[in-house]
Formats: sequence, C-alpha cells, structure tokens
Amino acid sequence: MRLAQDGVLTSNCPSRVVLDHLTSKWGVLVLSALADGTLRWGELRREVDGISEKMLAATLRTFEADGLVHREAYPEIPPRVEYSLTALGREAAEALGPLLRFAVEHAEEIVG
Amino acid sequence: MRLAQDGVLTSNCPSRVVLDHLTSKWGVLVLSALADGTLRWGELRREVDGISEKMLAATLRTFEADGLVHREAYPEIPPRVEYSLTALGREAAEALGPLLRFAVEHAEEIVG
Repeated sequence: MRLAQDGVLTSNCPSRVVLDHLTSKWGVLVLSALADGTLRWGELRREVDGISEKMLAATLRTFEADGLVHREAYPEIPPRVEYSLTALGREAAEALGPLLRFAVEHAEEIVG
Repeated sequence: MRLAQDGVLTSNCPSRVVLDHLTSKWGVLVLSALADGTLRWGELRREVDGISEKMLAATLRTFEADGLVHREAYPEIPPRVEYSLTALGREAAEALGPLLRFAVEHAEEIVG
C-alpha cells in the first residue's frame, strides 16, 4: 500500500512542515470546525472545546500564512472578525475527513 | 461539508485520544512507513528519518496497545523483532493517505 508518502519520510522535506501544521493537536480540530462554514472567533472557541485563546490565535495565524484560512475584519464597532477556509483549506479539510471518521468510528474499540 | 467530526470537537470524547495518537508527529510517519509492509526495528528507524529510539519505542507501544500494530518476536540469536500493521492499522494508514498526498502535493505552494 503506497501512501504517496515518499516525501514525508525524509526529515527535511517541506511536506513534513505541512503535515506538522495539519496534524497538530488543534490544527485538526480548527480545520474540521471551519469545514462547516465561516465562524467568528468566539464561535470557533466554543466549537473547539478546550482550546485556549493563545493556541487558537497561533493556529489561525499558521493557517492564514499557509493560505488555508481567510480572515475578514469588518470595520464595525464592536469589531467583527470572521474566519473561513480558502479553497486550499477546504481541500485540506476534506483530506482530513477519512481520518476523523476513522477516529470517531473506532474510538470505543481502541480506547474503550 | 460535514466531516463526521461531531465527536472529535468535544474535549472528553475518546475519538480525540485516537486522533492524538494517529496525528502525533511520529505516529503519522510510523504508520505510513509500515503501510509498505512488515519492518524490523532498524528498518523502521531508517525509514522514519529523524526519529529517536525513545520516540519509536513509545509510538510502537501506543499503537500496539491501540491494536494498530502487531509485534512479532522470533526466538533467535540475535533476537529478531518485526512490526506490521494489523487490519485495523491498515485501515488507519489508508485513512491517513489523503492527508499525506495533500501534504506532498501542496508542500511547495504552502511552505515554498
């Protein structure tokens, strides 16, 4: 079974960096929360149970720099900021789908 | 886009534990290395560039306890120990496939 993983197994391959970002503890959950649609900061913090302000900010900054998340700030009082997946971000979230389904499906069997 | 992630977003859901194991930095790489077939300890260390003895041992122990990896020790001198994916482990590795392909395909574009 080839998983097209040739790149990821060599430590200096850039795909390792992408993999680290996508599979970071909170990265997986932020992407899957945004897969449902645009969310504000407060909504994101509620969706991703247990994430701190600091980790949410760092995770969003990484994904913005990676081109996976779009941040839209509206010039309003109080300020309104919304986060959404870019096309590339949606592709990443879809690539995560099978893994999330495996985790949910087999959780009892594995952790039980 | 629903990613069947209802479970994973709540912090006390067992699927989060499974997700943490699968998406740990070395977990992803050990599973993808074993997706090619049975490997000995030394072969695994060479395949997964950069992994320490300690992390390889801890990762394999976790996956054995999860029922994803099978360890076979042969009563020989010198001792021979082989690691392979169980059926559940192969399913987990397949679920990782799209994520690995995304990382390899978009590495230059994201990290570039």
